[in-house]
Amino acid sequence: MAKFITIGERIHCISPVIREAMNNMDPEPILKRAEEQLKAGADYLDVNIGPAESNGEELMKWAVKLLQENFDNVPLALDTANKKAIEAGISVYNRAKGKPIVNSADAGERIDNIDLAAANDAIIIALCSKEGVPADNDERMAYCQEMLERGMMQGMEAEDMWFDPLFLVIKGMQDKQMEVLEAIKMFADMGLNSTGGLSNCSNGMPKHIRPIMDSAMVAMAMQCGLTSAIVNPCDLRLMETIKSCDIIKNETLYADSYLEI
Amino acid sequence: MAKFITIGERIHCISPVIREAMNNMDPEPILKRAEEQLKAGADYLDVNIGPAESNGEELMKWAVKLLQENFDNVPLALDTANKKAIEAGISVYNRAKGKPIVNSADAGERIDNIDLAAANDAIIIALCSKEGVPADNDERMAYCQEMLERGMMQGMEAEDMWFDPLFLVIKGMQDKQMEVLEAIKMFADMGLNSTGGLSNCSNGMPKHIRPIMDSAMVAMAMQCGLTSAIVNPCDLRLMETIKSCDIIKNETLYADSYLEI
Repeated sequence: MAKFITIGERIHCISPVIREAMNNMDPEPILKRAEEQLKAGADYLDVNIGPAESNGEELMKWAVKLLQENFDNVPLALDTANKKAIEAGISVYNRAKGKPIVNSADAGERIDNIDLAAANDAIIIALCSKEGVPADNDERMAYCQEMLERGMMQGMEAEDMWFDPLFLVIKGMQDKQMEVLEAIKMFADMGLNSTGGLSNCSNGMPKHIRPIMDSAMVAMAMQCGLTSAIVNPCDLRLMETIKSCDIIKNETLYADSYLEI
Repeated sequence: MAKFITIGERIHCISPVIREAMNNMDPEPILKRAEEQLKAGADYLDVNIGPAESNGEELMKWAVKLLQENFDNVPLALDTANKKAIEAGISVYNRAKGKPIVNSADAGERIDNIDLAAANDAIIIALCSKEGVPADNDERMAYCQEMLERGMMQGMEAEDMWFDPLFLVIKGMQDKQMEVLEAIKMFADMGLNSTGGLSNCSNGMPKHIRPIMDSAMVAMAMQCGLTSAIVNPCDLRLMETIKSCDIIKNETLYADSYLEI
């Protein structure tokens, strides 16, 4: 059984509260967001500290230790353009509950994050794009292949590479959605893990619609074989949908209480 | 664009209110149920009069005329084991908004309902079972093939045969769900239309869970190519999910108001 993995996206410096907490190394707002997400069922927590060019190493170490010490070594995705900060975070990371995730590499300028993940026995999120949005699945799969080879050459296990098809915004790219789902299916057919920022699809939609659209998308993506996603775990409808699809896929055993677990 | 088709299931003699209305040929309860379903977005209405051995012909004619006269020739699915009642219903049926659906044939004792549909230029729901639950998709697809050939031999268009994989109850047959979805994918790959009693999947689950599970299932099934379903259109979550999947599949055009249409 391979339950779907959710990566909680809400510890992100784009949020004013979190940014301020990171600036001041103030634990409370970060612990609060972590607790909310874990209570809602997140498996991993993403820690996005932004570019963090000046104090990234210190900040990521602080955040990793803070979260893991307070939440029983919760597994984390380390999310920053600052490579040294990722390495610093990994240096203090406890693997008891799972490997760290490096978020992320692509087939362009960030391809060497694959090397970083390989050198540190981490999971890599491998975004199938080079410059902007891939034109089609030929391009997506070429990048997938390129990144897969790079990882394998450096001794990574394929299962530690989570391929991201790049979810696209429906408002503007409605006719590209089935291609994204088809890419996920291709990853699954190759036996590869996958992930992505699912809620991109509902970007710009009215607030009350987003959980509805995201839930429809995650169910269709799980049918195609998506194995994880970077989501807001506090979106109840989305989490209910993920749990229900895991039941339908026979990845978790049905009980009348399955939504509460 | 081929929007998903919903067949409203709530005019069914299993409901005490509807049974009594049918017994007394009392229009009001039936019109009320019809209006509720159409307002909620049903495309077709199913009219299930049960076995109706004594007065089936009279009853079905009455129901067809009642519904079509009051709701602008709403298209209907005629649902009874009484063949003469189906023929009687078709004899007064107005095709302005679509062909009548015969609900249903199977590959066993009810296979001659295909002949009935062919003779009357109707759509047939073709249930891929013979005696009880098909053991696997080899069996399902053998029945599909058998019924498809029978219809074609009698001059039916393949598009007028809507294949039903037989949705199975998760509580008891959890490990069979992906096979049902795979069957739908096979129908779609053959260019065939499909349908089914979707809410079978959540049979026996607590009432608050059923819309959640049915919504997850319909999204996964639509990803596989399901083209219609027999549903409770008053299940808001389900209808929201269907409309959202139609957007993702690019079958209807996105607008911020799409849920209200």
